[in-house]
Amino acid sequence: MNLKQQMEIMLPAIEAELQKQVARLDDAATRPFHEMLTYHLGWTGEGAGSEARGKRIRPLLVLLTTASCNGAEWLPAAPAAAAVELVHNFSLVHDDIQDNSPRRRGRPTVWKKWSMPQAINAGDALFVISNLAIMDLAGNYPADKVIRSARVLHETCLALTRGQFLDMSYENRSDLIIEDYWPMVEGKTAALLSACTQIGSILGGADDFTIEQYRIFGRDLGLAFQVQDDILGIWGDEALTGKSAASDLVEGKNSLPVLYGISQKGRFAKRWAASAIHPDEIANVARILKDEGAYEFARREGARLTNQALNALKKSNAQGAAGAALIELADKLLQRES
Amino acid sequence: MNLKQQMEIMLPAIEAELQKQVARLDDAATRPFHEMLTYHLGWTGEGAGSEARGKRIRPLLVLLTTASCNGAEWLPAAPAAAAVELVHNFSLVHDDIQDNSPRRRGRPTVWKKWSMPQAINAGDALFVISNLAIMDLAGNYPADKVIRSARVLHETCLALTRGQFLDMSYENRSDLIIEDYWPMVEGKTAALLSACTQIGSILGGADDFTIEQYRIFGRDLGLAFQVQDDILGIWGDEALTGKSAASDLVEGKNSLPVLYGISQKGRFAKRWAASAIHPDEIANVARILKDEGAYEFARREGARLTNQALNALKKSNAQGAAGAALIELADKLLQRES
Repeated sequence: MNLKQQMEIMLPAIEAELQKQVARLDDAATRPFHEMLTYHLGWTGEGAGSEARGKRIRPLLVLLTTASCNGAEWLPAAPAAAAVELVHNFSLVHDDIQDNSPRRRGRPTVWKKWSMPQAINAGDALFVISNLAIMDLAGNYPADKVIRSARVLHETCLALTRGQFLDMSYENRSDLIIEDYWPMVEGKTAALLSACTQIGSILGGADDFTIEQYRIFGRDLGLAFQVQDDILGIWGDEALTGKSAASDLVEGKNSLPVLYGISQKGRFAKRWAASAIHPDEIANVARILKDEGAYEFARREGARLTNQALNALKKSNAQGAAGAALIELADKLLQRES
Repeated sequence: MNLKQQMEIMLPAIEAELQKQVARLDDAATRPFHEMLTYHLGWTGEGAGSEARGKRIRPLLVLLTTASCNGAEWLPAAPAAAAVELVHNFSLVHDDIQDNSPRRRGRPTVWKKWSMPQAINAGDALFVISNLAIMDLAGNYPADKVIRSARVLHETCLALTRGQFLDMSYENRSDLIIEDYWPMVEGKTAALLSACTQIGSILGGADDFTIEQYRIFGRDLGLAFQVQDDILGIWGDEALTGKSAASDLVEGKNSLPVLYGISQKGRFAKRWAASAIHPDEIANVARILKDEGAYEFARREGARLTNQALNALKKSNAQGAAGAALIELADKLLQRES
């Protein structure tokens, strides 16, 4: 089975487990509250459907990792897969409030639809349900594995809040250096992908050496993914044409290419320090940044991290169709064009 | 040892465990983030001190309950005590944002000091650390007790978000009936007190019947406490003189006496439905509400719940000095005048 075939089996199991977990709030008195969650998860409301759901990469990573450990059964790990996806979505709901973002995946955000106070609470609820989901592993695994998995999840959430703190603290700062970048994306992106592969391998019955390789695979995959995201945010088709006004340059995002550009103290650094970039300038500023070596630098960093990730995956001795699908998933994540 | 003597031993242990838990964020890169938490918990910043810390009732309830179970050691339960206090404080930080409250325990709230986005994240961090704290029980107790305690904590947090949802949904509604009151306060107040006594007794090694009695004790204590709070919010000295403008009548709070008053369809109901209560009217409206029987109704409900709570505590066979201190704590909570 290739990745596509694996996904056709795993994705419905992930949706079913997520729905079961979120149904904890599905009773008469809290129906509108339940609806905020099902809306955000892409099941209900205007625009519901696969586009609104996101790609469910994280739960897939959990289940593929479990299955790649000596062909262990992956279905008993479904509550853990749901837990990481719920953590991801809790962070998105709060993120959208913090960033004042009106839209997410093509639809109005939860706070925009139901108010900021209700959205804080809806995010909290997704977070609580992720905790309950990870405890549901107790029906399928010995208690020590449940506790170990829960600890990984909680440590990851702490890293998420750290990354979020750094990200918010970096806004409007012009003295950042490249070294400030890694701790921030470690928390914001890499920690949760790393939790997926760690928990997946714990539940797959891997030994400590192997779990450590999976941890590194997830983390470096996350870092490489973020670097790729940063590159696309400046030189991706959409960013360059500015048609969605989503260019990281206009938003003033302290991405890796930007921090590299600042460190070069050249034309880009001067322009960046002067004032916000206007949508009309995007193509020109992006060209200057590329000329000063930022594209090449970021591409090399991305390649280095990708190699590290794949190297760790090799050492983990990921097996069978699921192991091959993991490599395919990594390739897909890192070679995307948009 | 009476309650005061128990508190003199337990409170320093609670503070030490809380500080240890929160120190997870105490490193160079996240120092200002750590400071938001230590400020909110009353240890640092202007106005730090016992007033700013709150009474630590919840962690005390955990430790006294543990100690009252056949004289079990209470110190190993300290991480659970810290966990419930962290949950309480997480909910306060988010509450203050949701209610737009500028002050808490005599000091500026976290969002007022550090911005709303940072405060959402600080609340999230307190919540995450509560999850890590409960997992720290694994050093002191068998895995099945850790999982059982964690489940109680997570179910409680879900009840908190439910209560919060209902509370926010009730704002500006004039069609509420007395039956709408209980599910809201069950989540907002009673669930967490109930978690304290449940977890305390699980860790104290109690059997299922006894744990159930402690659960009922905590829940009914919480409900009785809330009813008492509602009474003081209208007929307490401060509420009547309006000197802090904190009267629940002015704030339009759907408290138990108010819902009773509405149900009587008399002068109070008419005045309540017409427009917001002005500070100058407090004494008059409070008198009308009392004349229509709301004070007596709430007092009776409070007494009923108090009796239920103490009856359950009796059945739990709470032992020794800690058992006596639990009764003293309950009395103190329910007979307070402010």
